[in-house]
Amino acid sequence: MTVKLVVLYTQPDDPDRFDLHYREQHMPLARAIPGAQKVETGRIIAEADGGDPLWYRVTELYFADRDALDTALASQHGQASAADYGKIAPPGSRILVQGLDD
Amino acid sequence: MTVKLVVLYTQPDDPDRFDLHYREQHMPLARAIPGAQKVETGRIIAEADGGDPLWYRVTELYFADRDALDTALASQHGQASAADYGKIAPPGSRILVQGLDD
Repeated sequence: MTVKLVVLYTQPDDPDRFDLHYREQHMPLARAIPGAQKVETGRIIAEADGGDPLWYRVTELYFADRDALDTALASQHGQASAADYGKIAPPGSRILVQGLDD
Repeated sequence: MTVKLVVLYTQPDDPDRFDLHYREQHMPLARAIPGAQKVETGRIIAEADGGDPLWYRVTELYFADRDALDTALASQHGQASAADYGKIAPPGSRILVQGLDD
């Protein structure tokens, strides 16, 4: 089963500063994580439910299976990405593991 | 710019009932939405941040651009999907629009 690491970022206090750090430092780390088959990221540009604009960006990393994800998170690049996430993720941000349906 | 409709479902009171409705009724509606290039869905199977297990399922519909998404949401199948979402989505569920980075 393909699994994804789903990272949900809440609104940063300083979006320009967040974006710069994200683009220049965080994405290179995320893309270097071993076993990540694809990395997809983008800003939330609207709330289709008319709800609270809490969420700012979503990033997803695809892995062949749960073992590949766990190995990736434990790797040097995985740990470096997690440490950098700790620096930039606004309060309430989340990191979830999703198992994709067939 | 490719855009995604990102649907975040919180934990249902009765997961078995939710899953049955989701699989048998909601997914066929979502897959019939015109202009949706891909539909990806799956359960949240772990919280990699050790946080609250609030989120239950994530579903994403891919569109060529924002216009295609807006047209889809206004279509008969889009409206039917939205109505069905209103029936099954637990409180706190969200529907967001994401613009993917290149």
